[in-house]
Amino acid sequence: MNRRTFLQAALAAPLPLAAQTAESRAPRNIRITGVEVIVTNPEQSPMGNYVLVKIVTNQPGLIGWGDATCTGSDLAVAKMLEEHLAPGLIGQNPLQSEMLWKRIFYLPYYRSGSVHMSAVSGVDMALWDIKGKVAGLPVYELLGGKVRDSLLTYWSTGGRDFKQVEDGVRRFMSEGYKVVKVQVSAPGMEGGYAVPPTEKQRAAIQAAYEKGMPPDEVWEPESYVRILPRLFEHLRKTLGEDIGLLHDVHERITANQAVALAKTLEPYRLFFLEDLLPPENLDTFRLIRQQASTPLAMGEVYVGAWEGHSLVTEHLIDYVRHDLAHCGGITTGKKVAIAAEPYGILTAWHGPGNISPITHFANCHVSLSVPNFGIQEESRGWGPKVREVFSDFPAVKDGYVTIGDKPGLGVEVNESAARKYPYVRRLRPAIRRQDGTPWPY
Amino acid sequence: MNRRTFLQAALAAPLPLAAQTAESRAPRNIRITGVEVIVTNPEQSPMGNYVLVKIVTNQPGLIGWGDATCTGSDLAVAKMLEEHLAPGLIGQNPLQSEMLWKRIFYLPYYRSGSVHMSAVSGVDMALWDIKGKVAGLPVYELLGGKVRDSLLTYWSTGGRDFKQVEDGVRRFMSEGYKVVKVQVSAPGMEGGYAVPPTEKQRAAIQAAYEKGMPPDEVWEPESYVRILPRLFEHLRKTLGEDIGLLHDVHERITANQAVALAKTLEPYRLFFLEDLLPPENLDTFRLIRQQASTPLAMGEVYVGAWEGHSLVTEHLIDYVRHDLAHCGGITTGKKVAIAAEPYGILTAWHGPGNISPITHFANCHVSLSVPNFGIQEESRGWGPKVREVFSDFPAVKDGYVTIGDKPGLGVEVNESAARKYPYVRRLRPAIRRQDGTPWPY
Amino acid sequence: MNRRTFLQAALAAPLPLAAQTAESRAPRNIRITGVEVIVTNPEQSPMGNYVLVKIVTNQPGLIGWGDATCTGSDLAVAKMLEEHLAPGLIGQNPLQSEMLWKRIFYLPYYRSGSVHMSAVSGVDMALWDIKGKVAGLPVYELLGGKVRDSLLTYWSTGGRDFKQVEDGVRRFMSEGYKVVKVQVSAPGMEGGYAVPPTEKQRAAIQAAYEKGMPPDEVWEPESYVRILPRLFEHLRKTLGEDIGLLHDVHERITANQAVALAKTLEPYRLFFLEDLLPPENLDTFRLIRQQASTPLAMGEVYVGAWEGHSLVTEHLIDYVRHDLAHCGGITTGKKVAIAAEPYGILTAWHGPGNISPITHFANCHVSLSVPNFGIQEESRGWGPKVREVFSDFPAVKDGYVTIGDKPGLGVEVNESAARKYPYVRRLRPAIRRQDGTPWPY
Amino acid sequence: MNRRTFLQAALAAPLPLAAQTAESRAPRNIRITGVEVIVTNPEQSPMGNYVLVKIVTNQPGLIGWGDATCTGSDLAVAKMLEEHLAPGLIGQNPLQSEMLWKRIFYLPYYRSGSVHMSAVSGVDMALWDIKGKVAGLPVYELLGGKVRDSLLTYWSTGGRDFKQVEDGVRRFMSEGYKVVKVQVSAPGMEGGYAVPPTEKQRAAIQAAYEKGMPPDEVWEPESYVRILPRLFEHLRKTLGEDIGLLHDVHERITANQAVALAKTLEPYRLFFLEDLLPPENLDTFRLIRQQASTPLAMGEVYVGAWEGHSLVTEHLIDYVRHDLAHCGGITTGKKVAIAAEPYGILTAWHGPGNISPITHFANCHVSLSVPNFGIQEESRGWGPKVREVFSDFPAVKDGYVTIGDKPGLGVEVNESAARKYPYVRRLRPAIRRQDGTPWPY
Repeated sequence: MNRRTFLQAALAAPLPLAAQTAESRAPRNIRITGVEVIVTNPEQSPMGNYVLVKIVTNQPGLIGWGDATCTGSDLAVAKMLEEHLAPGLIGQNPLQSEMLWKRIFYLPYYRSGSVHMSAVSGVDMALWDIKGKVAGLPVYELLGGKVRDSLLTYWSTGGRDFKQVEDGVRRFMSEGYKVVKVQVSAPGMEGGYAVPPTEKQRAAIQAAYEKGMPPDEVWEPESYVRILPRLFEHLRKTLGEDIGLLHDVHERITANQAVALAKTLEPYRLFFLEDLLPPENLDTFRLIRQQASTPLAMGEVYVGAWEGHSLVTEHLIDYVRHDLAHCGGITTGKKVAIAAEPYGILTAWHGPGNISPITHFANCHVSLSVPNFGIQEESRGWGPKVREVFSDFPAVKDGYVTIGDKPGLGVEVNESAARKYPYVRRLRPAIRRQDGTPWPY
Repeated sequence: MNRRTFLQAALAAPLPLAAQTAESRAPRNIRITGVEVIVTNPEQSPMGNYVLVKIVTNQPGLIGWGDATCTGSDLAVAKMLEEHLAPGLIGQNPLQSEMLWKRIFYLPYYRSGSVHMSAVSGVDMALWDIKGKVAGLPVYELLGGKVRDSLLTYWSTGGRDFKQVEDGVRRFMSEGYKVVKVQVSAPGMEGGYAVPPTEKQRAAIQAAYEKGMPPDEVWEPESYVRILPRLFEHLRKTLGEDIGLLHDVHERITANQAVALAKTLEPYRLFFLEDLLPPENLDTFRLIRQQASTPLAMGEVYVGAWEGHSLVTEHLIDYVRHDLAHCGGITTGKKVAIAAEPYGILTAWHGPGNISPITHFANCHVSLSVPNFGIQEESRGWGPKVREVFSDFPAVKDGYVTIGDKPGLGVEVNESAARKYPYVRRLRPAIRRQDGTPWPY
Repeated sequence: MNRRTFLQAALAAPLPLAAQTAESRAPRNIRITGVEVIVTNPEQSPMGNYVLVKIVTNQPGLIGWGDATCTGSDLAVAKMLEEHLAPGLIGQNPLQSEMLWKRIFYLPYYRSGSVHMSAVSGVDMALWDIKGKVAGLPVYELLGGKVRDSLLTYWSTGGRDFKQVEDGVRRFMSEGYKVVKVQVSAPGMEGGYAVPPTEKQRAAIQAAYEKGMPPDEVWEPESYVRILPRLFEHLRKTLGEDIGLLHDVHERITANQAVALAKTLEPYRLFFLEDLLPPENLDTFRLIRQQASTPLAMGEVYVGAWEGHSLVTEHLIDYVRHDLAHCGGITTGKKVAIAAEPYGILTAWHGPGNISPITHFANCHVSLSVPNFGIQEESRGWGPKVREVFSDFPAVKDGYVTIGDKPGLGVEVNESAARKYPYVRRLRPAIRRQDGTPWPY
Repeated sequence: MNRRTFLQAALAAPLPLAAQTAESRAPRNIRITGVEVIVTNPEQSPMGNYVLVKIVTNQPGLIGWGDATCTGSDLAVAKMLEEHLAPGLIGQNPLQSEMLWKRIFYLPYYRSGSVHMSAVSGVDMALWDIKGKVAGLPVYELLGGKVRDSLLTYWSTGGRDFKQVEDGVRRFMSEGYKVVKVQVSAPGMEGGYAVPPTEKQRAAIQAAYEKGMPPDEVWEPESYVRILPRLFEHLRKTLGEDIGLLHDVHERITANQAVALAKTLEPYRLFFLEDLLPPENLDTFRLIRQQASTPLAMGEVYVGAWEGHSLVTEHLIDYVRHDLAHCGGITTGKKVAIAAEPYGILTAWHGPGNISPITHFANCHVSLSVPNFGIQEESRGWGPKVREVFSDFPAVKDGYVTIGDKPGLGVEVNESAARKYPYVRRLRPAIRRQDGTPWPY
């Protein structure tokens, strides 16, 4: 088939459904006829806006669902999809997922970044969902099949003091968790990352939400890096060596504090230390690796397959933690895992509650299929309205996650429910130092 | 002022205008009261959508204009500004441009990329415009003052054969240009970058525009890299050595073709060779520099100050060509120039017709003020409706650009005119190889 | 499911066919019940032994075919499969291709190398064939779908003098080929790589075959590196610039000759220069890249996904040429392509006549699905008895290869035909220098 | 002798024994007339298959014995020798061991790896055995003569708890051993490397053997890396500092665990830490060396002289541990030792019970002759049937090994005994993580 014929085929109007024949239903004749975006916030919660992508085809009943959620940029992503990318998909064969990824990547010329790549991610997941349904197989089979039956997972507990954290870990251990993420408040701070805020800060956040403004949060890294080793000393003393512990710095400290912290935490043998630094600081990662064996995880802010690639090829980290809703979907996740394989670097895909269950399924499909799997962050406690919108959720039991074996991703969206719950403006906090300097979240 | 007071001040409602006093007009009390976005396309042309940012303050008549245009993602940028970034600016002091750049950079957490950074760029320019107006000085004075009086510039000519290109260059030479960008069609291609398309391709583009779909364009790099050295051989034979010639590859070739091309073009002593490669291919730049002295320019697709930083610190290029409408505005442009200075790398800011005149002014302010200036791309031939919307344009004469000395950026927007001309959907072409493979623009 | 249950499931005897139910036919219940190896040489030709792998399942009619051919080690590969690897596959789910690749990779502990990895490759292809059949889709759909519709290809012509080579190229050009591989005899040599031997050498080869001994071939690299640039000078003069030319050195020269040759050939702009050096000589590749832009291709002797990985991460080559029948099959091919993607390195999978058509199909499935495809070597002129054994062949037309869209790999084996044509001992030549030193083939 | 004459000589039929003369017995006229392979398992034990190579010459009584044993691939090695390599040896002069190594290395074109190189190793040893017999000297004399009279050695003890291990070490200390290898069970694991399995696991292994299937073994690295430092803390406390202790990780942990383990074990001053990582993870070795002084040993899985060469030239290890039965025999062993000498890296050739006594002799000949000898692993407790097949064994006394001074390697094979004991299929375990992931042995 020469190029001209190809274009004619691709741009041809989809066959009217009445005209469906065995030939028109052949995989090579499937065409995308629509790309719809639904922004929904079932629980009307601060981190609960989801940007869902529905790809419709010329085949009766054949649709795919993807997740383009990007907290903090949701409506920009939705607009990117509707106005700037969808026209590049109409008339194309959805099975050509790799080609379409590149097509909508190059389409805007000024490309990449969180907004564009979240949009690409949502499309990519929906295309894999369609492919699995056409194949009659769960997506993990298309990615090489299961390398394992279930996925080691963890969940997070944060406290305002050591005892609260310890109690949280014990609660998760009693549920069978083998690994728990622990966060603690820094002395004198009203808020912090992944810890309960003070009452005062809670009220300030609420007030800001009501005005549609970003809440302010003050953060001082020095008190935090001083208290953290003492938390782990406490936990190892009280809980012993047999529980995996991990921690997320969330980029909130300086370069030198990062070097010192990785070294100071070494005796407590963390499962991993996450987002120790802004991702740009490649040189600091080099310093850290010369001095400390504390395992490092990075990746949730990377977009595209090759951001952070040098962290891998120089083996500066131990876990890749890309968010499949931002980095380019399943296609990218699989590439990132493969690029990490020759270095013995393991996967730990980002899986918080502020991405939709669709990404959680995407995470599990990739995690099941890659040899160099490490751990899978998995959310829990989905509220009743989220459960009304999404047909299924990964199951956590005894510290392991499993998914079923439905064709495609295995999760469908109840559209009329989704459309009931509109987008809510809840701005993320603007973090500043005591002196007013803006600081990474 | 301690932190608490600062926050209270920042979040206070702006003073009613009636209550203005000497104190309320003091620079420390200026506050942002609104961020407005206008998307306008005065000429209703394919590349003519502009995303304009207007920042309003609590001072009567004190506003700033910035340019957040990002062809291919315009409406997503507008939404990013209106919904996700503007709330982070309201109530803040616009003179704190550096702080606000960081504030809205960190605000969405998942950050950077063309959409987010174009939005930041537009805000940044508007803040500098305000600052200049408060100071009663053109922005270049705030950046260190003029290092030169006028700016070497070039314009582009493209032809379907060598003779057409030669004639184009001669025309520009007769107008006093010292440097001309030359582009030629590759044999057998209907389109190409910056060359006139065939009639057939022109019709196909028009048809796609009417459907709101991306036009298709077929591109084969091999025939292009074979003809290009022959074009320069022809031009040097017919035009001599005294005219500066530059060329833009626009990333359309493979890594190895790039190495070979830089080497093959060496004898023709280009002013620079632009966008030889996708910006990710750092390693290929290293290969090229080991083998060829052809001067290289890169940068128009970089967002943020530090993308492409290794190209500078390893001295892999000779010109930084960031687009101030995408990389973070004047603040970023100044930083990029400074980081390049110790290496003798010169500036050549991107200045095509598909960014608004506001960015062209921003370019000139930075170019006038940095010691390591190289050349300034400057657009020409602005249509009458563009001239209705914008109050002023940089002046080109004898191959040099100048701007006036009005306070701020020196260009105002006629809002009622701008609002007459709505956004037009004109998708960029989807470039593919003969066999159907997607290819960079 | 805990580990014990997993093992019980995996090792359970396959259900008797009579007992098949919807449940027993579910993908999760498919099990491998047999691994058969057929060594066949349909044309009884020197390079025509094929080692075919048939994987049988507990599903009526569901089998997969793979190619474990490894010329020069065929019977060792067959024995490796039958005795040492097959027991690791029985009772396993064939859809778990990634897991089974690792399982039989680690099984013998002393691992890797041409014999073991050819065996793994054959198994891997058969597993992907099964997966595609279960999905009802051609394998390329499972790998991301078509990124292009057809594959640029080349074929080879060798002559004893320049005119013979020139005539060969013209013949291929008249058939529509855009790229041709050219080889020429070195003066004074009776044989050579991919060129017609002298009558005397032909007789010597025949005599050795009859004795079951390796023929001897004398090779002197110096006369070869002297004549090669003159061949390309001749071809560019007589054929012009518009035909792609490539050449295979087949590792037959010294390190310094390689550096000099890559440099001397630069003006003739080869499509690529293949196997310039033994793969171990990483340091010489570094020397070459500092001096010459001649595009380099390597890979046909690599086994496993990560041999030669440094050639990629240091960007020392331009094309990866792994042989999917030796490097680990489709699973490895996809990984190698992905690892090459961030460097702009392209694929050019090895596709000679001495691997079976099954590998040729595997090549095409991967080539169709990867964004960074370069070219696909494709064999032609399969004899009538080969056509009796294999159900289909990739089609070459106008210099491009296509395959159909049958589920799985798209090629079946006529077993009774295959079993008619036994293995033939035809040893490869033992290459030596004039003084007797053994030399790479 | 010019090249033509050489070939004629090489291909000439060996002289009939009756025609032997002084001239025909001259070393230059010795020719290989046969290559025979015997696969024997005297004790019918799981790890007891030996692949023996016998090279026969045209000289009455002049034969050589080599060991091509490769547990897990034995029959493939035998087939490789018989079918694919032997024809390249017939008619050649066995004294040209270096030339023949290269000849049969290049012969199959797709080369190297465990199967091919084990075959080459067996041939190489047999050629050195012949050379020594022709010279009337033990092989060590041909390698430079004895640098020492006896070889420091160690043996291994493994236990299910610390006390068992401690008792084992004491037993070896009482026999005069200066260095002991210690292994301990990881908590909760049924098996493990070099430790006694539980009764349950023993039964499972037996059941798998009876079916001819690989036994399954579950392995979790985390509990192992946690207990190991505590083992050494226990041993140093109970046994003091005066006993050399070493440990073999057998590649069973992740990259990051390896870095942390090497660092954590530092205070216990191991003699060496062996196979800490899969050999591919060069970059991880770099990380380790930046952080820990624990002595590292690697090599038993390397094939060929130059695999792992970067570990030496970057001084990433302290001991080379190649297995002379897999890496290319005595020729390769000598080269590896020489390449390590300028770095002060010492030898510690692999010497387990699952290679035949012939390799143990080869080990000793090289170990005696190299200046940079470290330690020699030596097996003990050869059963009575092994003693029936092989004429001699290295002697261990007081923690040192010695061999005699017979010409050649010093060990002959009782062929009729060997042929009594056939190959037994005993597959190595398939190691998997708790979740089912395959894992290195």
